[in-house]
Amino acid sequence: MQLSNPAVPVQNLDAIFAALADPTRRAILSRLAAGDAGVNELAEPFEISQPAISKHLKVLERAGLIERAIDKQRRPARLKAKPMAAAVSWLEDFKEFWSSSFNQLDDLLETLKQADIKEPPNE
Amino acid sequence: MQLSNPAVPVQNLDAIFAALADPTRRAILSRLAAGDAGVNELAEPFEISQPAISKHLKVLERAGLIERAIDKQRRPARLKAKPMAAAVSWLEDFKEFWSSSFNQLDDLLETLKQADIKEPPNE
Repeated sequence: MQLSNPAVPVQNLDAIFAALADPTRRAILSRLAAGDAGVNELAEPFEISQPAISKHLKVLERAGLIERAIDKQRRPARLKAKPMAAAVSWLEDFKEFWSSSFNQLDDLLETLKQADIKEPPNE
Repeated sequence: MQLSNPAVPVQNLDAIFAALADPTRRAILSRLAAGDAGVNELAEPFEISQPAISKHLKVLERAGLIERAIDKQRRPARLKAKPMAAAVSWLEDFKEFWSSSFNQLDDLLETLKQADIKEPPNE
């Protein structure tokens, strides 16, 4: 499997997929797609504490999915979605396995198998 | 964010991304893309035990990414890549953030900002 985005090292896929495996972190990324936001703003829609949000932001930052301003007190977070392209690139190698044409073929084979079971060979 | 694949519940994205966050599990999926395989065959290229491979297969099975034959002793695993389409669908909503046109625009804005700093307004 080749990555089309050489800027993201393969080992970083571990951190990217792990960061995406949490609904709060995915919601934070969706919120940041609408614009930069500080911890206060990001914590607002969730029933979790600001320190918990800060921990999630650290996970996203280590995965390279966000960056945080260091020169401002509220340290707004900004989306850096490019590493997601590496994740998509890896997943898209499996596209033929979920395409409808493949599924139709799969269904056809299943139907043929069923027909085979119902009609035993003439021996 | 909407999923284009209603067959995969949103909460399953947690399990799918978590399953993908491991290099051995990703290698197993790549191997299964070439055809069904039993635990023995799957363990061969790795320096880990068959029980360890079996644990990885359980994680992949719970995420819906593979299924295992129950009627055969070697219980070959088969790729079920369709849930990956849900993961791609979620990620693709961020496409504009990693597209080159967006980055070019970003660079342009940065250049304009720098020019603004160098040339203070005539007041």
